[in-house]
This record gives sequence, C-alpha cells and structure tokens, in this order.
Amino acid sequence: MMPTRLANVEDSEVLAQMLHDFNEEFGDPSPGVEVLASRVRRFIDRSTKIYLLAREDGAASAGGFAQISFTPSIWSEGPIAMIDELYVRPALRRRGLGQELMDSILALAREQGANGVEVVTGEDDLGARALYEKTGFRNEIEGEKNSRSLFYEREL
Amino acid sequence: MMPTRLANVEDSEVLAQMLHDFNEEFGDPSPGVEVLASRVRRFIDRSTKIYLLAREDGAASAGGFAQISFTPSIWSEGPIAMIDELYVRPALRRRGLGQELMDSILALAREQGANGVEVVTGEDDLGARALYEKTGFRNEIEGEKNSRSLFYEREL
Repeated sequence: MMPTRLANVEDSEVLAQMLHDFNEEFGDPSPGVEVLASRVRRFIDRSTKIYLLAREDGAASAGGFAQISFTPSIWSEGPIAMIDELYVRPALRRRGLGQELMDSILALAREQGANGVEVVTGEDDLGARALYEKTGFRNEIEGEKNSRSLFYEREL
Repeated sequence: MMPTRLANVEDSEVLAQMLHDFNEEFGDPSPGVEVLASRVRRFIDRSTKIYLLAREDGAASAGGFAQISFTPSIWSEGPIAMIDELYVRPALRRRGLGQELMDSILALAREQGANGVEVVTGEDDLGARALYEKTGFRNEIEGEKNSRSLFYEREL
C-alpha cells in the first residue's frame, strides 16, 4: 500500500468528487462537484483545511481522503485537530486504508503541535466507530464517569 | 434581566475566572486563571473566538458566558458556529440566563452568515440537553434516520 500524502491544489477535483460521492452514498445533500472543487481549492490554497489522500498500491487515483481543521483551544497551548471528513471508496473498504488515514492524521496533528483530535460519527456507523476506538478515541466526556459525549446541531 | 453583550479584552479576567470555575465544578483540569486570562485576551484581540456575557439585572459582574468559534465549512458558503463553552454561575441557574445566551448565540451566528450551530455535551447533562433541544438543536446525523450523533476524542 502506498503511504497517504498531503493533497495540493491540483487534487481539488479528485477531492471534490469523493466529497460528493460521500454525501450521495449517505443521502445527504451536496452542492455539486464544481462548487466543492472551488471550495477545496480555496481551503488548500489558504491552509484553512488540510487534506490527506490515501492510495492503493499501484492505483493512479486516490482511494480515500481525510479533511482536517485545526482550531485554537482555551484549554491547551496547542490547537485541537478536527477530522471533518473521512472517506474510503466503497470498493476499497476493509483493506486498511481507513487505518492508514487515521495514522497519518495522528502524525500530522502531532507535527502541528495539537493537544487532541476530535471526530463526530453516527451511532449506527459501526465501521467508523470501530476504527476510531481502535485508534484510541473515546466517546466520553472528560471528567465525568460513563457519560457519553453527544454532538448537537441546528441549521440557521 | 440585562441583555447579553459581546465581551472585550477588559473582560478577560472575569471570563478566565468563570472558565476556571466551570472546570473545577466538573472535576476537569484547568491551567489556572492567569494562563486562561492571557489566552482569552489573545483570542478576543485576534477575533479567534467570540465571548458573550450574560448579566443578571442590576448585577455588576457577569452571570455567565458563552465561547463561540466560527469554522469554514465545505458544505456551505457561510461558516459553522461552534459553541465551545456555555456557563451560568451555579447560584444564578434556572433563571433563564442559559436561554438568553443561546438566543444571543443564534443572533450572532446569523449576523456572521453562519449556516449552522454545533455544540457537544454529556449524555447525563440533562439541563444542557434540554436547553439545546428547546433551542432547536438535534442530536442526529443528517440524512440518517434515528441515528444519534456521537462525539469522539483522543489526547495526543
């Protein structure tokens, strides 16, 4: 398996297509590949977000990707890394690409001096949850015992 | 009740003390008021984060606060507002200050062109969950039915 690598602006279209496919797969709305590509390009260009590309051995195109944001934290000197998106092409799942991406995310976060990494997932996404738990992530509020940490959102 | 207001750098010490008290109350580690005050001051100065102060009628000092971050989103033109912290002094709870803060957060997020607001809380923090649900927040993954949205983290 080829190692994951940092994406650059030339990867914007490939990333946009995977972001779009991701939402199609889960029935979520997508603004379309063109709009996504222009946002990805801007985010990479301005270092707003960092994208990691996973590759399968010998494959020309990426087999998956992760989108990561770094946010300053009031509780630590370093920032917190947030895994915004993590995707592996359906045909390439269960081959370790997700774990490769997670390992690269942790390495990147350490390199950037981050004090922690965060990710949100659905209760019924057992594959993602197993991957995160295997990678040392916990679904618990710090300082409380046995209380799960829940993510709430509302649109505006 | 006096309306909430945006904090400025002169409020850094008051905010740091409440952040510290917040973590003391829940048994979480705190770097101490002095370190927190210097971070709050930096965050306000650079507009890294926005702080809202809640006041009780006639009170000289703040009765609570919220810390909000704005993050660019790949799924929308506008950013997403994240409620990092929400606190009401113990003696002033159950008087509507939390709801006042939530209403101000929504108004601020709309003003900034945000497309959504996010917040994380513990499963056993029934007070916070009731407040968020009353304010239109949902603990569900978009596009999936009846799947709760879980927050995972790990330290580095």
